[in-house]
Amino acid sequence: MLTKAPRGTNDILASDSYKWQYIEEKARDLCRRFGYGEIRTPTFEHTELFLRGVGDTTDVVEKQMYTFEDKGNRSITLRPEGTASAARAYIEHNLGAQPLPVKLFYLIPCFRYEKPQAGRLREFHQFGVEVFGSQAPTVDAEIISLAMLFLSELGLQELALNINSIGCPTCRKAYNEVLIAYFKEHYDELCDTCKSRLERNPLRILDCKSPICGALAKKAPKLIDYLCSGCREHFDAVKTALDGMGIAYTVDPDIVRGLDYYTKTVFEITSNDIGSQSAVCGGGRYDGLIEELGGAPTPGIGFALGIERLLMVMEQKGLSFGEVEPPKLYVASIGAAADAYAETLVYHLRKNGISCEKDRMGRSLKAQMKYADKSGYQYTVVLGDDEIAQKKAVLKRMSDGESVTVELDEIENYLK
Amino acid sequence: MLTKAPRGTNDILASDSYKWQYIEEKARDLCRRFGYGEIRTPTFEHTELFLRGVGDTTDVVEKQMYTFEDKGNRSITLRPEGTASAARAYIEHNLGAQPLPVKLFYLIPCFRYEKPQAGRLREFHQFGVEVFGSQAPTVDAEIISLAMLFLSELGLQELALNINSIGCPTCRKAYNEVLIAYFKEHYDELCDTCKSRLERNPLRILDCKSPICGALAKKAPKLIDYLCSGCREHFDAVKTALDGMGIAYTVDPDIVRGLDYYTKTVFEITSNDIGSQSAVCGGGRYDGLIEELGGAPTPGIGFALGIERLLMVMEQKGLSFGEVEPPKLYVASIGAAADAYAETLVYHLRKNGISCEKDRMGRSLKAQMKYADKSGYQYTVVLGDDEIAQKKAVLKRMSDGESVTVELDEIENYLK
Repeated sequence: MLTKAPRGTNDILASDSYKWQYIEEKARDLCRRFGYGEIRTPTFEHTELFLRGVGDTTDVVEKQMYTFEDKGNRSITLRPEGTASAARAYIEHNLGAQPLPVKLFYLIPCFRYEKPQAGRLREFHQFGVEVFGSQAPTVDAEIISLAMLFLSELGLQELALNINSIGCPTCRKAYNEVLIAYFKEHYDELCDTCKSRLERNPLRILDCKSPICGALAKKAPKLIDYLCSGCREHFDAVKTALDGMGIAYTVDPDIVRGLDYYTKTVFEITSNDIGSQSAVCGGGRYDGLIEELGGAPTPGIGFALGIERLLMVMEQKGLSFGEVEPPKLYVASIGAAADAYAETLVYHLRKNGISCEKDRMGRSLKAQMKYADKSGYQYTVVLGDDEIAQKKAVLKRMSDGESVTVELDEIENYLK
Repeated sequence: MLTKAPRGTNDILASDSYKWQYIEEKARDLCRRFGYGEIRTPTFEHTELFLRGVGDTTDVVEKQMYTFEDKGNRSITLRPEGTASAARAYIEHNLGAQPLPVKLFYLIPCFRYEKPQAGRLREFHQFGVEVFGSQAPTVDAEIISLAMLFLSELGLQELALNINSIGCPTCRKAYNEVLIAYFKEHYDELCDTCKSRLERNPLRILDCKSPICGALAKKAPKLIDYLCSGCREHFDAVKTALDGMGIAYTVDPDIVRGLDYYTKTVFEITSNDIGSQSAVCGGGRYDGLIEELGGAPTPGIGFALGIERLLMVMEQKGLSFGEVEPPKLYVASIGAAADAYAETLVYHLRKNGISCEKDRMGRSLKAQMKYADKSGYQYTVVLGDDEIAQKKAVLKRMSDGESVTVELDEIENYLK
């Protein structure tokens, strides 16, 4: 146990981290183009934030949170998602005083105690965006376009965008009655959790993972058929904006998302390359959240995209993670004087922007060269007493073996 | 409480996150030059790892850890530092099978329950490096040179490097007896924690934060006077290597570092700009750690650098965090048709690499222009029915007000 990472968590080793760096750089670049600024909130929050923000009858809150007491007897929880924290920060720092909308993104680890499986970890990573302060349906289209562009710029092609509207409190109130009536007819078939949810929050039955509740949900009345005129217009405008950008979508009345805060537009993006558990991105509008958390009434919308699943698809499809330039120079040496010289040379070159390395293991010259070759250095140079005395050495390009004699002082310029 | 981040944690808002991005990019670039690969370990580990790795008589483990039980009744702890996790990953993934040394770096949040103060948070951030598998004293010099270069490339100039050697188990055994004898003479003056540490781990009394224990520690015998010949030679070689690179240092026999795993070389880098609590970087060798955790005997060395303190110094000194290019274009519009056109144009430009924005608040043209000016856009363009009809519009450079009429299709090329 001492030498194992906790179940459901992963190490990202140096041999893989360039993939994460590539994805994160893409996300940052795209957010810059779209005008989103990065926010970083703490890893944990007061538990109450998620009870109120995510909803106390959600699977996430009821079953999956890493909640504990700190040494000051506060109940704190490792964030299970990013929206509640961003909303809390928006209120705490009065970001609403800035010119609206406030557009934020984040790249964060999140924590849910679930059964680990391929692409689903207990500590997982999200790229998320949030827009606070605008109720314009074009913002819904904007964040969808951002998510779609992100995925397609990473090389994913078979993307399916599914959208739905789950209405506002007005239309949902009417719908809830219909839904409660429907599920009451099937009360005995519901799982215990859903039985307890029936009166309090029937919408959550629609995303229950038990097969029987799931089958019942499939046949349940759909919220989209009970939208008020405002929500209907909003949804139509979202579709028009997507049409204008040439982004194809399917309206899927079964999308409800598992968190309480969603209103109006909800959406999921699936990749057709990883089977049924294939949603790589999901999001939606949450016009009531900021008020629910104690702020002034403020519309909001966002999405979260799971990095682990994205990475899984990219690896399965053999997509590129960018070119990583191999290290430039290996400085081999024979003898104590040359080794000391190599030490100073390597420091000087690194200081001046050149990636280079020397032996740290007391290896023979032959072993040093083998190491340099295996590690992919672009050039090697061998220093011995003669080279130090003459201040010249042979620089060898490893790709084709071409060699050139250079003054030691000129190595830097030669390699630049 | 609902709308406050937990005590001792911080939000990094969009207005500040560019500073973090800048520091992180610098760290990644420097590590690339020095041949260090990024590792990312989980946010929490089995508690036992830190008890064994950091040491169960350290302040960190005794007083400061965020430890709790997960839903599977495992005792887990939010990492209080990065070395134990990196060492655990080194063992778990058998990284020792790679050509040695294995050189790693990380940029991570860490967690310690301490009294929050300026530059010291309960969730704080570290830039750390670790080298596994080489006992060469030149590696000690290499990581010190990396830390010094990192700080100086960020613009810090008044840096003081203090080094010391705290020996290996052989010399430390002899020294411990001397130290126990010394503190026994002052037993009644020691704090309760130190009384209990006296026989088990007298070295930890040397970094006790109580003023009385601290004063006693100042006058205690110094480990550096009790080094065995091997440790003495190692330390001399470190100093020679630093001399070779022209890095100035002071030998400070009082540096012991607060974690049990250190051996031989230990060091701290302080900035003379933030007073007495000014160590921004600390590290050292830990040749026994991997074995202590159940791996094969493997030397190791590393440092950790506190980002919050670094940021504080940089801000106080008014240092640069790089140039952030202001967003390129604001597309203002009048009327529904122009607004819809703007929507598509903005999407197209963003897709093609240009950062741009349009109204999402139903603002008047005047208010749109005010927003664009306030937000620092480099260019603005105004679209109305005429512009759409003629497929031309006036592009205005905000820095000098210079205007040019361009075809709408040409805006992209013009701005590139």
